[in-house]
Amino acid sequence: MIRVVGIDPGSRITGFGIIDCEGNHLRHVDHGAIQAGDGELGERLRRIFSELGAAIDRHAPAEAAIERVFMNKNADSAIKLGQARGVAIVAASLQDVAVHEYSANQIKQALVGRGHATKTQIQHMVKILLNLRETPQADAADALAVAVCHAHTRASLQRIPGRTSRAGRVS
Amino acid sequence: MIRVVGIDPGSRITGFGIIDCEGNHLRHVDHGAIQAGDGELGERLRRIFSELGAAIDRHAPAEAAIERVFMNKNADSAIKLGQARGVAIVAASLQDVAVHEYSANQIKQALVGRGHATKTQIQHMVKILLNLRETPQADAADALAVAVCHAHTRASLQRIPGRTSRAGRVS
Repeated sequence: MIRVVGIDPGSRITGFGIIDCEGNHLRHVDHGAIQAGDGELGERLRRIFSELGAAIDRHAPAEAAIERVFMNKNADSAIKLGQARGVAIVAASLQDVAVHEYSANQIKQALVGRGHATKTQIQHMVKILLNLRETPQADAADALAVAVCHAHTRASLQRIPGRTSRAGRVS
Repeated sequence: MIRVVGIDPGSRITGFGIIDCEGNHLRHVDHGAIQAGDGELGERLRRIFSELGAAIDRHAPAEAAIERVFMNKNADSAIKLGQARGVAIVAASLQDVAVHEYSANQIKQALVGRGHATKTQIQHMVKILLNLRETPQADAADALAVAVCHAHTRASLQRIPGRTSRAGRVS
């Protein structure tokens, strides 16, 4: 059994989702959407750092998964996303949780079996796959989705002798 | 007397510079260039966070200053810079050090009296203004430069009744 935290960083809302996986069997543990608030930049980043750090501390996941970003928006949005992303990654790394990256296509493929899917489809599939009673908030659903993607990838890699699960590790 | 830390974040090298200022009088305290190394992203960001955090903890500055970024490079560089910047800001914010932002033009204006200056001119002026025996490394010089800019701005604002020194605070 391995516990995975999926992270969907954002300058306004950072989603996280925690699941346990054993082979192909997945179990939902927790999820949430951290509101950075409307304070100063330092305060907003500190809130992401502290609340994500507290969730990781509470649930002690062994591995983390995050979406790889290919920005086609403007550089100003990229800086803002980068700031939240850096803080989220360091919050995991400080607790010795290795962070693995997956492209949006890999995540959608793992969830709905193809590279194109709407936000609503992702939310729906996360709800079904993890047997949730309620549809999670969009950013929390994206975080659970990347955790599920990592769980599937780990399970596949373990079936290939000689392959490690570090293939998607951030670098 | 107020102690200021200037920060020049970068995905490879993050400069920091610490000065004391009393009115227009400036005194150099410390500076350094944190090498993020060539490990995984989590390790690199953790090194920035830990080493900058340790410098702030050691010298206990009351305020921090950082260059405001206007990216005209590609979004991929912006994400990388954003990640380092977010980690640097949170390292200061966690120790209750308010972070103030200055544009590149404001910093050059404060150092050489006009909005255009080469890296070498900045290094030279930092050396002269702070009475250093050796020219600091380029990123450390940029960090000292933004600290000097903040010190000058604080001193000017204190001469204007009713103005606070929060004008450039990051938001």
